[in-house]
Amino acid sequence: MIKVGIFGASGYTGFETLSIIRKHPAATLVFATSESSAGQMLSELYPVPWEVPLTPLADAPLAEVDAVFCCLPHGASMSTVIVARQAGVRVIDLSADFRLVDAELYQKWYGVPHEAPALLNQAVYGLPEINRARVRETDLLANPGCYPTSVLLALYPLLKARLLDAAAPIIADSKSGVSGAGRKPTLKTHFVEVNENLSPYNIGQSHRHVAEMAQGITQLGGPGHKLIFSPHLTPISRGMLSTVYVSLADDLSSSAAQNLYAETYAAEPMVRVLPTGQLATMAHTQRTHLGVISVTWINPRQLIICSSIDNLGKGAAGQAVQNFNIMFGLEETAGLL
Amino acid sequence: MIKVGIFGASGYTGFETLSIIRKHPAATLVFATSESSAGQMLSELYPVPWEVPLTPLADAPLAEVDAVFCCLPHGASMSTVIVARQAGVRVIDLSADFRLVDAELYQKWYGVPHEAPALLNQAVYGLPEINRARVRETDLLANPGCYPTSVLLALYPLLKARLLDAAAPIIADSKSGVSGAGRKPTLKTHFVEVNENLSPYNIGQSHRHVAEMAQGITQLGGPGHKLIFSPHLTPISRGMLSTVYVSLADDLSSSAAQNLYAETYAAEPMVRVLPTGQLATMAHTQRTHLGVISVTWINPRQLIICSSIDNLGKGAAGQAVQNFNIMFGLEETAGLL
Amino acid sequence: MIKVGIFGASGYTGFETLSIIRKHPAATLVFATSESSAGQMLSELYPVPWEVPLTPLADAPLAEVDAVFCCLPHGASMSTVIVARQAGVRVIDLSADFRLVDAELYQKWYGVPHEAPALLNQAVYGLPEINRARVRETDLLANPGCYPTSVLLALYPLLKARLLDAAAPIIADSKSGVSGAGRKPTLKTHFVEVNENLSPYNIGQSHRHVAEMAQGITQLGGPGHKLIFSPHLTPISRGMLSTVYVSLADDLSSSAAQNLYAETYAAEPMVRVLPTGQLATMAHTQRTHLGVISVTWINPRQLIICSSIDNLGKGAAGQAVQNFNIMFGLEETAGLL
Amino acid sequence: MIKVGIFGASGYTGFETLSIIRKHPAATLVFATSESSAGQMLSELYPVPWEVPLTPLADAPLAEVDAVFCCLPHGASMSTVIVARQAGVRVIDLSADFRLVDAELYQKWYGVPHEAPALLNQAVYGLPEINRARVRETDLLANPGCYPTSVLLALYPLLKARLLDAAAPIIADSKSGVSGAGRKPTLKTHFVEVNENLSPYNIGQSHRHVAEMAQGITQLGGPGHKLIFSPHLTPISRGMLSTVYVSLADDLSSSAAQNLYAETYAAEPMVRVLPTGQLATMAHTQRTHLGVISVTWINPRQLIICSSIDNLGKGAAGQAVQNFNIMFGLEETAGLL
Repeated sequence: MIKVGIFGASGYTGFETLSIIRKHPAATLVFATSESSAGQMLSELYPVPWEVPLTPLADAPLAEVDAVFCCLPHGASMSTVIVARQAGVRVIDLSADFRLVDAELYQKWYGVPHEAPALLNQAVYGLPEINRARVRETDLLANPGCYPTSVLLALYPLLKARLLDAAAPIIADSKSGVSGAGRKPTLKTHFVEVNENLSPYNIGQSHRHVAEMAQGITQLGGPGHKLIFSPHLTPISRGMLSTVYVSLADDLSSSAAQNLYAETYAAEPMVRVLPTGQLATMAHTQRTHLGVISVTWINPRQLIICSSIDNLGKGAAGQAVQNFNIMFGLEETAGLL
Repeated sequence: MIKVGIFGASGYTGFETLSIIRKHPAATLVFATSESSAGQMLSELYPVPWEVPLTPLADAPLAEVDAVFCCLPHGASMSTVIVARQAGVRVIDLSADFRLVDAELYQKWYGVPHEAPALLNQAVYGLPEINRARVRETDLLANPGCYPTSVLLALYPLLKARLLDAAAPIIADSKSGVSGAGRKPTLKTHFVEVNENLSPYNIGQSHRHVAEMAQGITQLGGPGHKLIFSPHLTPISRGMLSTVYVSLADDLSSSAAQNLYAETYAAEPMVRVLPTGQLATMAHTQRTHLGVISVTWINPRQLIICSSIDNLGKGAAGQAVQNFNIMFGLEETAGLL
Repeated sequence: MIKVGIFGASGYTGFETLSIIRKHPAATLVFATSESSAGQMLSELYPVPWEVPLTPLADAPLAEVDAVFCCLPHGASMSTVIVARQAGVRVIDLSADFRLVDAELYQKWYGVPHEAPALLNQAVYGLPEINRARVRETDLLANPGCYPTSVLLALYPLLKARLLDAAAPIIADSKSGVSGAGRKPTLKTHFVEVNENLSPYNIGQSHRHVAEMAQGITQLGGPGHKLIFSPHLTPISRGMLSTVYVSLADDLSSSAAQNLYAETYAAEPMVRVLPTGQLATMAHTQRTHLGVISVTWINPRQLIICSSIDNLGKGAAGQAVQNFNIMFGLEETAGLL
Repeated sequence: MIKVGIFGASGYTGFETLSIIRKHPAATLVFATSESSAGQMLSELYPVPWEVPLTPLADAPLAEVDAVFCCLPHGASMSTVIVARQAGVRVIDLSADFRLVDAELYQKWYGVPHEAPALLNQAVYGLPEINRARVRETDLLANPGCYPTSVLLALYPLLKARLLDAAAPIIADSKSGVSGAGRKPTLKTHFVEVNENLSPYNIGQSHRHVAEMAQGITQLGGPGHKLIFSPHLTPISRGMLSTVYVSLADDLSSSAAQNLYAETYAAEPMVRVLPTGQLATMAHTQRTHLGVISVTWINPRQLIICSSIDNLGKGAAGQAVQNFNIMFGLEETAGLL
């Protein structure tokens, strides 16, 4: 059994990671930390029948684990990752702190200087469907953001095949459940403010995830700077749907488009392409760790890709465990299906 | 036009009161205060097209108004009410600070000593269907709580007719929308915690409103101490339904029960009794200022009364304006239908 | 008082129209029809305290009214409109039957031949902000669909100023509340299927409203055929938000874009443009008859317009009454604010 | 592996049962029927990645299975149960058809004569926490209704200990998610009618489950006829909470009450009693197969028991599989935790 610790277990992402790990056939939980709830049992925070003590971060016995999941907030994660790596522990970091390869870009978007720019080169961006080989080798995995996961999975087949029109905008209109905003109470997540409402925020090129997605698109040879991204908050607890509008450089038939997606993901255990005529909805992936994608052909130069994930599943904890499984040579779907 | 000020206009209750007053045919708004948002316009807090500046409480021009609505939190309201009364302004207080006639009881339930016990005798508990004559005369109106309004309207016909079995429990199982918990973000009102959940809290005889309801029942000659009250939080923004189970001292026929309710409220403009066979639901009163009641006869000694109000309507702001209308000799429904 | 009849009063749109008319200062309701609920009172269908008898369509006393609102389904509306026009009654038709000027196009999208192609030329498409002069004169008003209203209001300032890049796609990603799907129970509107889900449907160029929107864009000199439209069903009762992505033919500054919208709608009583930095949400218009629009500048050639309406308000009944008011020379906002 | 068939797999209960069985370590699915969707794959009805063909009931290969789960509607289940029993197949019937021991009572409440009164004596009512020994032996298991499960689990410790006041009413105020109303679209389950609403229905002693609960209470020596039961529909997909008010014949201390519950269920794998001070909420059991119970002491003679189950879990499919496990001598929690 691989020994695992979780930093930041009281938030939604940490709790979801912990929920997977405690039933994982090849992992065992050694510690779970929470600064805000240190000293409490997890069952005091969530209505679950199982008991896990929450310890302060400083008390985490790093020497006793093989790997840690860092579920701390952006900016706060860096220092813990550094300490864990110094202790020789393999790290899956669910924050944004090691996703951008450029420390300056990080500072621009997250407002603080990066504390370990040297580690940025070692970190591997963990979208297994794109980077599996590198995931296998790394000791520092940067787990992708939820929006980037849904959008990059939607674009990857077209990017790989170099089919996008480099001069045209890529438009990703994304809808997210509220758990993506975290468990800290704010007016933005107050029931009465969210319920019966649907609200765009940070639309255009102003959301932090634009940088992460643009980097991913550019690394695959696409026009990252052409991305327009509009997130919307929806009155749903869990789920994410990105409706992605793309223009192609050359004519593509409807069947060729469908085949491209079907073939790209045919061997992928955690991504599913729907047959022609079906559209991906949030329900396709809710409370799963899957990504589900549909392709809608409008004309030979334009497609709509609908990409569904659970923001806490394939968009966070599920993908983190998928990466963990790959890093440790386990069955990739262990604990996830 | 009657000149009106609102203390605490940025909370849900204050905002609802303000929304009624600005369309009220006989009232005009002179000021609206907010400590947390002083200096802002109301349109920065709520997505409304009209502009109302929010001033600090200390700057409220009491000399320029005829009446104030106090929508401040319990405990914080008292001192402002005292100042307003000293300025000769008529007060409708939506907090709990003047609802209990006994200052010791107030301290027991609200945890702070009452600052103006002498005013308690002057305050009139504003359930117009029960107290209309006294409402008309008062300068200090204690606007009832939402739960007490729904439960006391359900019980009043039986209390007035002295039909309750004084030895049997009165059981009020109440369900409330989330706006009743206020606009301050807490984990309890976080969308993800409330959504898809239904949770009892402070059940039995431990909720503060038990004291207020028991007082009302006792004043009408009933067994106030027999009240068992169970509030439940529901994933709904606005609304309240109390399902009230009563035992009768003597046999009552189904038609007599229905008639008792129909007749008691026949002349009431803001309370409606449903015909036999229909049950009151939250939808009956949502976004209205009405109370809607249904009577279900089980056997000659047992009834179920379903009592529906909007917690911000008849349960707070709507009833406050109804009381205001009575106090100033206006049409009782002005601004409310 | 203008005498009014409502055909199809038991559906959500008909009920909403009736709810406005009964409080309208210059209109009085003469009849309300329902085929499915003929003989019942409206209060048996909706939890309202007011009583309106529902009569069969065939019994509607057309000779006693000045105007009718037709809230019948597409295809079923035509024959009633013909009869009403023959009786000399002015018609506001909320169905799609008279929105498309081309009878062949109608047949293509709605699957039935048009029964009164001659009337299509007389019908005026009732978006007052675009067509007010023609609305004033018509006896047959085709009230726009909800999606077209939200999208055309978003595009109109750019179309009027001829700023759109005619070669680029116009992408409208729309999100709708469930009442837009009608009151007839289907699996698509079953609570358990809708709740906690968000689902695209008929995306690309396959939804009927594409024809209506393309016609409107083309009439204003824009590239109607370039419209890509993706509706999504959301777990919300009422509301609509369209996020519209446009490319411009020439450079436009951020302030010029904002000014264009602000000026276009400055004198409009039912459309509001938000100040720079605020984004339109569903909450801005919910349970109102307003349209609310925000402009987000991405770069000199690309904008995102967020356009919010209530699908039953400005998207249906509210706009119908706005058109009624114009047709009868009343205050345009009568009954609507 | 035990070979299993499912009758009525396309409804919510059947689908949930199938979802458990396909991951069950000791069961294998042989067939799944659906009359309304025969010939389709399950993935055409639900957004799942796995494929199960739906066959007509008449084609079900009874000879190839050891057990069947009957998830057919009340009234329709009887005939299939009879055929299955004649084929020697063990039956878990999730309908109400074999829950009442009295055929006349069945006819009174369900409106049709019972087709197999002789089988009623063979059927065992499958609340394992009460009837485990008899469950083990039976070939015809009547799986309890969701409301009866929640209420009987709440009452069982008091009934077993003979503590209830036989002269006092037992009041069960229950709140249910919408999936309990089935997947057939009706106005009652239309999203817009349910959302933002909470509605009582069939309250008092008029709901069919009253007969089932009264029978259970009486069999345990309690005053079944004293039960008052008020179900409420809530805007929640899955979940059930019963708030149960009881009067005791003799004084009971708070700790004795808590201990009674804790001890009664101490060895139960699927029922959990919360520690004093915590209240059962829907979230405690949602998407689980557990029952969770809290005890609130009001005074020595009155308690409130909150009893939470998932209406599709412990309230239907989960309990059916628990019974299946017991009948076949498997680990009782197999497939359920």
